[in-house]
Amino acid sequence: MAAPSSGPVTTLAWRGDAHVGHVVLLDQTRLPDEEVELEVHSAAEMIAAIRCLAVRGAPALGVAGAYGLVLALRELAGRAAQHLELVRARAAELAAARPTAVNLPAALARVRARAERELAAGADARALREALLAEARALEAEERAASEAMGRHGAELLADGAGVLTHCNAGALCTVGLGTALAPLYVAARQGKRLRVYADETRPLFQGARLTAWELARAGLEVTVLVDGAAGHLLARGAVQAVVVGADRIARNGDVANKVGTYPLAVLARRHGVPFYVVAPCTTLDPACPNGAAIPIEERDAREVTHPRGIATAPHGVRAFNPAFDVTPAELVSALVCERGVVHAPNEVRLAALLARAPAP
Amino acid sequence: MAAPSSGPVTTLAWRGDAHVGHVVLLDQTRLPDEEVELEVHSAAEMIAAIRCLAVRGAPALGVAGAYGLVLALRELAGRAAQHLELVRARAAELAAARPTAVNLPAALARVRARAERELAAGADARALREALLAEARALEAEERAASEAMGRHGAELLADGAGVLTHCNAGALCTVGLGTALAPLYVAARQGKRLRVYADETRPLFQGARLTAWELARAGLEVTVLVDGAAGHLLARGAVQAVVVGADRIARNGDVANKVGTYPLAVLARRHGVPFYVVAPCTTLDPACPNGAAIPIEERDAREVTHPRGIATAPHGVRAFNPAFDVTPAELVSALVCERGVVHAPNEVRLAALLARAPAP
Repeated sequence: MAAPSSGPVTTLAWRGDAHVGHVVLLDQTRLPDEEVELEVHSAAEMIAAIRCLAVRGAPALGVAGAYGLVLALRELAGRAAQHLELVRARAAELAAARPTAVNLPAALARVRARAERELAAGADARALREALLAEARALEAEERAASEAMGRHGAELLADGAGVLTHCNAGALCTVGLGTALAPLYVAARQGKRLRVYADETRPLFQGARLTAWELARAGLEVTVLVDGAAGHLLARGAVQAVVVGADRIARNGDVANKVGTYPLAVLARRHGVPFYVVAPCTTLDPACPNGAAIPIEERDAREVTHPRGIATAPHGVRAFNPAFDVTPAELVSALVCERGVVHAPNEVRLAALLARAPAP
Repeated sequence: MAAPSSGPVTTLAWRGDAHVGHVVLLDQTRLPDEEVELEVHSAAEMIAAIRCLAVRGAPALGVAGAYGLVLALRELAGRAAQHLELVRARAAELAAARPTAVNLPAALARVRARAERELAAGADARALREALLAEARALEAEERAASEAMGRHGAELLADGAGVLTHCNAGALCTVGLGTALAPLYVAARQGKRLRVYADETRPLFQGARLTAWELARAGLEVTVLVDGAAGHLLARGAVQAVVVGADRIARNGDVANKVGTYPLAVLARRHGVPFYVVAPCTTLDPACPNGAAIPIEERDAREVTHPRGIATAPHGVRAFNPAFDVTPAELVSALVCERGVVHAPNEVRLAALLARAPAP
């Protein structure tokens, strides 16, 4: 078992220098059967990896997108004007690979802005590559530190012996550090608290069964898997003292888009008087988005529903409804845990205050 | 496409006479891939068929149990005292095959009581077989008529153009007629109403995707499958005007045990102001059971969770929580539809009045 404090797993890393380096991903489509590394050498390969969910989770997607833009510079040739054009075009393509998480376009905007500054200052292709890799690496380091801080803040909300229900995978596998929703669990375990963790399997793609159960068990935590529909019975039995989930995008008013199936948990948690915590870095907050209704909800291929793990369950040709996310209204969120601290009963005023505050050291 | 009015499918039938006959089941574990008939020649084979869910659904289980007891009479030999002993022992074994639905023990008690009366009146083995087959056939005919009546009463609650969400399979496949929850849909369709039906896939065993989608599509109704966790988003989008489910057991106070994942739907329906209807024959009501807390909830094999359709999703050895049912409190039930009519806002007083009323013609 890997010690959680050492980082349960390496989701994503840049290997080599800015000129001949590449990205290495743990291919999450192969878990939990196999731990297979995927080498990514171009922006097009990164887009494919993002689309097929080899890499996933809002914070990891941001870092993946940033490195993807560094890889795009391989195509550089000719004059600086063309460099800028290429950076903008590839940033737009990478951002479009998945539409819901704000971290991906935000990370790309940051790296693109750096490119614009470097080019305005007369950087050549070589200098541009080095500058963009430095920017992507800084982003990665910040996400790692944010993960650790979320873990610290969130662990204070979890009592020794608590039952904790989580959905999808908001763990080490969706970040470059300890995770978002799972970071408090890893930190609490490090502090000697014994938790009973319940992981919704999370249809259609089974991220809870495949990824959350895998990384928690690997780190030595006690984990029990259940089908998504069984969470109501689990809560009714009093087995859960906290529901902890991540977020793909948080609107200005505190509405939270996260993996489909999150909203029912929030409604059930409220009914049973169990706190519902959202753990996400500040980069997940989208001040430009007024509320949940304005968050685009990706609809994915019907086959994910009709062919779990490739095996047909539904009769041939039946239609399917397959939203990847749902929206939990802010009023159901007991607290937002981010790297800057805990915001109880988040709303527009409290979130604006959070963003105005200087980042924690 | 089969016409729904002719009965979408034959779930279960007795073939032959009381002495050399047997039961034929549509093997529901093979749907939707194959329509395979399973011949059942002994009580032990019926217990196996019930346990593996080749036959399932509270009303069908009652009829299956009754015919199972007729099959047990094959073992008859010797004196009448031994006949009674055998009937009692096999009835207890059949009743234990699945613990939650009340129809199974109730049907067995009815057939066993008939056996006791016949034996007290001096029936021989041959007369006993004929009497018990007649009793089981009467039960089947009553269930079929109840299905039709539930369909008639329930159809009045469904408007033309409505979106209807259902869970698990409470259709023709779980009864010997039109079904319970699906009976109103078949009758409404027969009346020319166009419905959009949404079928939760219903993990762990996918009865919604495999069975409900299959039988509705076969009968020409429009059906869309979704993962259980997506029901919240579907309701939030306003696509659903009624949630309609069956029941495995209804307590005296109106609490409803049904397939796991039902309770979350009831909580969500209430939040969105959508009526939540339970459709079940009066045999599902258990006056001996004071409330939901007293209903035994079967826990099934962890492999159903960790190995959907036989393919591992969770890491090897991880534990699973697998309750087959959950309990929806009466206060969340908008109406109970049974063969005698519609009981709005069911509670102990209204259900007692329902049971006191003479059966509808």
